[in-house]
Amino acid sequence: MAWPTVDQWLSDLASDSPTPGGGGACALTAAASAALISMVCNLSIGRPRYAQHELLLTGVLRQATERRELALSLAEADAQAFQTVLAAYKLPRASDAEQQERARAIQSALAGAAEVPLRVAAIAADLIRLAGDISGRSNPSVLSDVAVAAVLARAALDSAVVNVEVNLAGLDEGEQRSRLAGQLASHATAAGAEAETVIRAARAKISGSIGGSIGG
Amino acid sequence: MAWPTVDQWLSDLASDSPTPGGGGACALTAAASAALISMVCNLSIGRPRYAQHELLLTGVLRQATERRELALSLAEADAQAFQTVLAAYKLPRASDAEQQERARAIQSALAGAAEVPLRVAAIAADLIRLAGDISGRSNPSVLSDVAVAAVLARAALDSAVVNVEVNLAGLDEGEQRSRLAGQLASHATAAGAEAETVIRAARAKISGSIGGSIGG
Repeated sequence: MAWPTVDQWLSDLASDSPTPGGGGACALTAAASAALISMVCNLSIGRPRYAQHELLLTGVLRQATERRELALSLAEADAQAFQTVLAAYKLPRASDAEQQERARAIQSALAGAAEVPLRVAAIAADLIRLAGDISGRSNPSVLSDVAVAAVLARAALDSAVVNVEVNLAGLDEGEQRSRLAGQLASHATAAGAEAETVIRAARAKISGSIGGSIGG
Repeated sequence: MAWPTVDQWLSDLASDSPTPGGGGACALTAAASAALISMVCNLSIGRPRYAQHELLLTGVLRQATERRELALSLAEADAQAFQTVLAAYKLPRASDAEQQERARAIQSALAGAAEVPLRVAAIAADLIRLAGDISGRSNPSVLSDVAVAAVLARAALDSAVVNVEVNLAGLDEGEQRSRLAGQLASHATAAGAEAETVIRAARAKISGSIGGSIGG
């Protein structure tokens, strides 16, 4: 995909065009979190002070880079999945056969549209883990960036949960909806708490000298 | 500023260049939240069903557009403020006079660098309020986008708190640090809880049909 400039993408997001929307913004938030994790690794790898963590940092850099690319491709996939849902709702429904065919197409499109944020949620959960892995094992001058990476990964996760739920809400009850809801819960439950731990630990180290008086 | 493409900006963020960093990512997250609020307004204004909220929606659209532009300019200001901090630390310190001058320059640069995320925090708090204002008063087909806007505004606020704190940590105790910390607390305390309320209300409406069983 040929991406527009940052300010143009934001204008496109703000417009009354159905895509990009919240799903794309969610995927790009995950991509920004991944990029920050890569930055912290890049500012730590090759420096004697963090030599003992070199193997860890190199592995995290590789995983964060992969996830950034995946998240970018999911932002694009989200727009396509949404267009498929819109197209399904526009199918003809004059006869019983058409109504059945349209209902099947809508169910299939909604399940497909739920899969994209589910994959973003999985990436966000991975990024929270990666931020935790490098916290305290990388250049302390960019510790605030580790915290911001965790904040953004948590936001990507929370947004993805909303975006899965809005597609599940239109799905008929049954095996497929239960499976998707179960997958969502598996990503969301532990990772949210883990993000909070990473953010708190970083803030405590950063603000040690000014006490815990600043709310947030 | 001439913005790069989205994927190029993410590559720049991931690189070992000191800017863009967490401050820029934080400001752009606020801009994405503002853009989503604009999108919801644009998909509601002019439609008979939301005519009773037209005045509100038009006002919110104007405020969200302003804040998107402000957030974009703050992403740029953040990079400049960070370069000023780096330059201050590199000043000569051979003589007592030079050491004093360098210390003064560092204090001034850190205070300037704290002001930028403080302004992002104020914008994020505004965006949380705007998302609350349009929740239930706009097109329900984009209710999930209201929730994502609130999630992203809260993430911008939380990131801004970290970015203010990391600059305050280097400031000498005194009137200036107390003033900046006080301003931060005024933005952060109420807005975080308000964001949670907006997100919960939207999720409850979206997921009404599938119960409250999905964690998040």
